[in-house]
Amino acid sequence: MADRVRAGIVGLGGQGLAYADLIAYGRIPHMALAATFDVDLAKEQVSKAKYLGVPFYSDYGDLLQSGDVDAVIICVPHYVHPELGIAALKQDIHVLIEKPAGVYSKQVNELNAVAGSKPELTFAIMFNQRHNPLYREIKEIVSSGQIGGIRHTSWIITTWWRPQVYYDQSAWRGTWGGEGGGVLVNQAPHQLDLWQWICGVPHSVYAKVAYGFRRNIAVEDEVTALVDYGGGATGVLVTATHDLVGTDRFEILGDNGKIVVDNSRTATVTRLRKPERQLGEGIDMPTVWRLLGGQENTDPYYTSEVLEFESTSSAQHAGVLQNFAANIVNGEPLIAPGAEGINGVRLANAIYLSSWKGAEVSLDFDDDEYLSELNRRIAEEGKFPTR
Amino acid sequence: MADRVRAGIVGLGGQGLAYADLIAYGRIPHMALAATFDVDLAKEQVSKAKYLGVPFYSDYGDLLQSGDVDAVIICVPHYVHPELGIAALKQDIHVLIEKPAGVYSKQVNELNAVAGSKPELTFAIMFNQRHNPLYREIKEIVSSGQIGGIRHTSWIITTWWRPQVYYDQSAWRGTWGGEGGGVLVNQAPHQLDLWQWICGVPHSVYAKVAYGFRRNIAVEDEVTALVDYGGGATGVLVTATHDLVGTDRFEILGDNGKIVVDNSRTATVTRLRKPERQLGEGIDMPTVWRLLGGQENTDPYYTSEVLEFESTSSAQHAGVLQNFAANIVNGEPLIAPGAEGINGVRLANAIYLSSWKGAEVSLDFDDDEYLSELNRRIAEEGKFPTR
Repeated sequence: MADRVRAGIVGLGGQGLAYADLIAYGRIPHMALAATFDVDLAKEQVSKAKYLGVPFYSDYGDLLQSGDVDAVIICVPHYVHPELGIAALKQDIHVLIEKPAGVYSKQVNELNAVAGSKPELTFAIMFNQRHNPLYREIKEIVSSGQIGGIRHTSWIITTWWRPQVYYDQSAWRGTWGGEGGGVLVNQAPHQLDLWQWICGVPHSVYAKVAYGFRRNIAVEDEVTALVDYGGGATGVLVTATHDLVGTDRFEILGDNGKIVVDNSRTATVTRLRKPERQLGEGIDMPTVWRLLGGQENTDPYYTSEVLEFESTSSAQHAGVLQNFAANIVNGEPLIAPGAEGINGVRLANAIYLSSWKGAEVSLDFDDDEYLSELNRRIAEEGKFPTR
Repeated sequence: MADRVRAGIVGLGGQGLAYADLIAYGRIPHMALAATFDVDLAKEQVSKAKYLGVPFYSDYGDLLQSGDVDAVIICVPHYVHPELGIAALKQDIHVLIEKPAGVYSKQVNELNAVAGSKPELTFAIMFNQRHNPLYREIKEIVSSGQIGGIRHTSWIITTWWRPQVYYDQSAWRGTWGGEGGGVLVNQAPHQLDLWQWICGVPHSVYAKVAYGFRRNIAVEDEVTALVDYGGGATGVLVTATHDLVGTDRFEILGDNGKIVVDNSRTATVTRLRKPERQLGEGIDMPTVWRLLGGQENTDPYYTSEVLEFESTSSAQHAGVLQNFAANIVNGEPLIAPGAEGINGVRLANAIYLSSWKGAEVSLDFDDDEYLSELNRRIAEEGKFPTR
């Protein structure tokens, strides 16, 4: 492999253009902008004016067969991610897809199967928040066992305010056929990914999903999900697009400590001196009451530190692109392997299924059942073809 | 009615003695300590030494028929609250019971029925946290419609750390037969009460309850509950006794605003200038992105204020006692009417039922079904008689 990855941007919407800019302006070592693609021919002028000498394609097959690109960065509507990813991989082209990996698990399984059959290719996903140094640090703290086994997690993430005008911008927004879901598919995939990346994939979920609750949309603007990790450990996710003064608070309680993250910027990490149950051995009740009342020195029991990180989404996106290129060029481990995109998609699918059935749903749900339930909603909506 | 209520303290455990002290030391206007009661004869010496001239009873019937008391304050094991309350009311004696009102809904219904047949008597419950000025203010803000209809609520209340030694203090602790439950029955009744007092009684609940999760007890040391208020509004409650560095965070999101309470001490109250959906009318997306990015003046959209209150549990307990006496003497409205104790008990019962059935449970569940399920667990445990 040469030390420079020739990248094609597939889809010149807001994200595609942002990534093209990062590459064209030299922000991504080992990566050059080698082609652009869009089905909208009006984008040709935009592309040619911004990126001098970079060829524009409006036929995806032509792009893949052009010999111009070693890798594609796929920034098209959610439903099409797997299809375009599969086509590129089959042409032996590396793939970075936007989140989510797809809308329904069955199509993402197909993408992963093709990627699995091409281990020599790099397959990554734009989970840019994995490049927020705060979450990388928390991932490391949890994975290395510093707070012990997970007891409970909760994430209230309602900083995704989207007024009605947002949904009214395009016919596909807020629809089953065009977008495949609401906050779970469009805004919260980052948290669905980080949550299970850091805390593990749950076994099952029970959820209340509020469809068209405070927005005129067919899909959901609010979700409350209760997950079960097995062994008594549980977690909660609350997300919504109707909270103007949104909350972003993530708590992880473990056998040996606790992490509380506020606003994806500040993490309070408490490490117990011994596992929690051992700390309670031999303690007397007067000491317990003083400890709870704030009248006891806590140092023999635990230490707390506050971590603060600033991180812009632009720097995070650049981090994903750099890591993708470095993996191709010199085998640097991927922070966000594409194959892991299935976890967030399955979690979202299981949340919907649970709400439709009014019952707890295993994360091992049947892929065909989910697709069939989704298609029923696309058909009832009557705006887009079923899948 | 004289202007002084002669009160009998029923049960001289920690709480009973604390209330007797408050009364005996003149902290409660319109109330005098007139008698004490305990089945433990050793308490007689304690009582007579502390409260000179105050008669001690070890037979409850004798106390009620003595003519010494106008009111009793019942601080005995949870299961006995309704029985002793009913006996007093039938003797035309005013009743203040400790929380919870009882362990299972059926017995609390019986208590409420008797109280309902004696409207001339005062029947109150020791929900002392209703006397925390913070929660009274929040109750007033929500009830007066300042933040509009409820969209979502969540309360993570894990500041109830109880090590194993706590449960090992007495044979009845942490048992179905002796205590009737764990954190839901012993520690969290305050939050079960405040939550529905402020936000309304939910229609249904789905819960994961972790029995003997991180403690050697038959009952639960952790609960995660998802409630449905109807109309798409939902809420979450998380509570546990195994979190040494507990969280106390309560959020209420309404159509016109939001309240975030930290540590039962600080409340951030946001009032929107118009209902949230109206604020989104006519806004353009660049303004939305600036607003979310913190680059837009928020004053046209909302105001926020931070309320801070210090409140000791002793002052709160005195508040309940004062209000109870003032209601008897001059009809001051009760802050915590006894009849409202059923709400928290039903919520706790429904949470258990949901976890046992693995299904969502209506708050209209069958009282006999709950008692029968509870009795099954008491029988399996084999330590105490069934009910």
